[in-house]
Amino acid sequence: MSRGVVTEAYQRLSEDGHVEGRGRGGTVVVAVPGAPVEQARGIGRTPSAEALFTTPPTVHVFDAVRVLPSRIDLSPGAPDLAAFPRAAWLRAERAVLAELPTSGFGYGDPRGTEELRRAVAYWLARYRGIAADPREVLIVAGTAQALGLIGTVLREDGIRAIGVEEPGSLGVRQHLRNQGLETPPVPLDEDGVRVDALREQGVGAVALTPAHQFPTGVVLGGARRRELMAWGGVVLEDDYDAEHRYDRAPVPALRSMVPERVCYAGSVSKLLAPALRTGWVLAPPRYRDTLVDAKRFADLGNAALPQLVLARLMESGELERHLRMLRRRHRRRRDAMTEAIRRHLPRAVVRGAAAGLHLLVTFEAAAFADTELAAAAVAHGVKTHPLSWHRQLPGPPGLLLGYAATPAAVIEAGVTALGQALREIGG
Amino acid sequence: MSRGVVTEAYQRLSEDGHVEGRGRGGTVVVAVPGAPVEQARGIGRTPSAEALFTTPPTVHVFDAVRVLPSRIDLSPGAPDLAAFPRAAWLRAERAVLAELPTSGFGYGDPRGTEELRRAVAYWLARYRGIAADPREVLIVAGTAQALGLIGTVLREDGIRAIGVEEPGSLGVRQHLRNQGLETPPVPLDEDGVRVDALREQGVGAVALTPAHQFPTGVVLGGARRRELMAWGGVVLEDDYDAEHRYDRAPVPALRSMVPERVCYAGSVSKLLAPALRTGWVLAPPRYRDTLVDAKRFADLGNAALPQLVLARLMESGELERHLRMLRRRHRRRRDAMTEAIRRHLPRAVVRGAAAGLHLLVTFEAAAFADTELAAAAVAHGVKTHPLSWHRQLPGPPGLLLGYAATPAAVIEAGVTALGQALREIGG
Repeated sequence: MSRGVVTEAYQRLSEDGHVEGRGRGGTVVVAVPGAPVEQARGIGRTPSAEALFTTPPTVHVFDAVRVLPSRIDLSPGAPDLAAFPRAAWLRAERAVLAELPTSGFGYGDPRGTEELRRAVAYWLARYRGIAADPREVLIVAGTAQALGLIGTVLREDGIRAIGVEEPGSLGVRQHLRNQGLETPPVPLDEDGVRVDALREQGVGAVALTPAHQFPTGVVLGGARRRELMAWGGVVLEDDYDAEHRYDRAPVPALRSMVPERVCYAGSVSKLLAPALRTGWVLAPPRYRDTLVDAKRFADLGNAALPQLVLARLMESGELERHLRMLRRRHRRRRDAMTEAIRRHLPRAVVRGAAAGLHLLVTFEAAAFADTELAAAAVAHGVKTHPLSWHRQLPGPPGLLLGYAATPAAVIEAGVTALGQALREIGG
Repeated sequence: MSRGVVTEAYQRLSEDGHVEGRGRGGTVVVAVPGAPVEQARGIGRTPSAEALFTTPPTVHVFDAVRVLPSRIDLSPGAPDLAAFPRAAWLRAERAVLAELPTSGFGYGDPRGTEELRRAVAYWLARYRGIAADPREVLIVAGTAQALGLIGTVLREDGIRAIGVEEPGSLGVRQHLRNQGLETPPVPLDEDGVRVDALREQGVGAVALTPAHQFPTGVVLGGARRRELMAWGGVVLEDDYDAEHRYDRAPVPALRSMVPERVCYAGSVSKLLAPALRTGWVLAPPRYRDTLVDAKRFADLGNAALPQLVLARLMESGELERHLRMLRRRHRRRRDAMTEAIRRHLPRAVVRGAAAGLHLLVTFEAAAFADTELAAAAVAHGVKTHPLSWHRQLPGPPGLLLGYAATPAAVIEAGVTALGQALREIGG
């Protein structure tokens, strides 16, 4: 047998969730779906599993979900982490350590290393249609930090409220509110955010996910983009998973159209791993210096070594290869989830399947609360996000179901359990 | 010849500044003292070399110093970066990548990884006399971030002003002020901060460097410690270089005496490299949860891989070995600098020689401004910090002279140039 056949066999077993790679620890057989539960570890004010779905979500909600014991994790937000390119990362780290001059270990440029800013500028040109000079790129510790820094700068500029999509990311809203900003909801329709409603809100800025709206998956339409360009405010473009498009080419970033009014934020959390805490911001020229100042005060700049390793993975084409592999794998998992939903949740309306790492299912005209369904799912060992967490206004119940990090067989088991949970609550 | 002899020869050549290791790039001969100047790279509002010493220091002053072309860098704040344990770091990274479970690449605990919190707790017990549970340890992106987070939390607790040592770190003052806090100066004497003056200020908190006062090197005396314990406010203990003590054992941290009122901050910037952007905070119990919340909002927690690598270096004893080696090397460089000062700056008073990474020289009853001397030194290609940057009140002129990152031969050349500069300005 050739090495290719063995590799392919291992890969399929891995993708179906029968085995899991443990790096040098070899490959081990995984019991599915009855995998052992994680130990719950409380952090400060983290709500208990009981309180999680019976009280409104606090800033501790995502920690609570993370530490919640489960056998199947369908919470949205992560790519396939089992595919993290450990060997390529180590090779790049070796090269970085071999070549870094002594001064590279000292205090650095708060904007990030030249190497990563150059690699990001190239990546954005190639994949997001954005022409950016590397000197414009600010390296940050993920989108969470980007939101905090941008919020600080907009507040200093006199902006008191940032419109947010409805429904829209709870996490984004929490980070902006922590900066003392109001986050009035701006409704969506099938073309994305309603610019007429945005005008009515009278806000100076809006936070958008134009390429793949979180959580509905709507793409901001061409006419709506032109309308938005005519609107005078600042757009905070959260391009969180734009590279993951399955059925057609990615939509260019808004930033490529109106650089003077768009503050663009991207990260490697959905490309490689959230644990890398690495992202980038392109600010409009008038905010660029104050944003660098905010980053300097935040932490004097990201750590150097991981930036240089990432720059190598981007420049060598490793990250592109990884993304292509992820896209194929994620697409198969999305298909598995769509099919499982068709069979086990036949009345659910599925949205956002063309791109991203999760699906949104809603239950139109249903009488139950989605937090009730999410709680019943947890009783079956399945973690999801209730849609209502990501809403400020009432609407039909729904669930956000991540598929990217979960093998097809586990997705099937998880959605089967969701069907049981739905029947139990009378949905 | 044995390998040991060759290694020793290379080490001496390296320590004397004749050769420099470039990792896998081999060892190259360094021209001393006429090494090529770095390219100046402006960042946003970074002041020009001309403005640097003629205008009061802004928040951009340290970036300006960093990018200033020079042949000899005696600015304080860095350990010997040429000694960074590249091979040990890579070995630890390989082990981390081989063993990390898939979930380790996802979003993590905002407090940091269990592994690093455990290693830091052990380190603090062993080297700083602090008994801390790993669950109390918060991993942060260096002391800069620690100051921002602690400032946020103290401000939310109603504290409006934090006393700072006079003289004291400009950087610390800038970070606290950025949080909207006032920083009234509290004078020092030969036993450290004057607690009677602190009482008069009527502040609710004070930022101190008790083990080795920055920049004077004074150690907070025993009676003064007891006085401080009787004072009712919060102490922000910045333990920035406490492990580097040459002539006697390190002084235990204040935190070990009054954990309920001391917010302790340490980092690896002076142990390994500032570019790692890794540090830790131990907060008083009543601030612990709000501090974790502040870290979550800042960036959701430090990146996982470097934390795990560092934890291995700490647990395996590599960091301890590195520290012992650094201490020997730094001590020799300190001796070289003290001797060079005796010869070339005979009227300078030297302070802070017992510990740390820099010396303070002052020129009592001198008529010149230290910024003038620092500017004249730059004209000779030598970077230093004028003492007045780290003062809020008038005082005799002085310079902060870092020796840890500079080989003895280069120190000698740098101090010789300082002597010339001093004569040029008529000092």
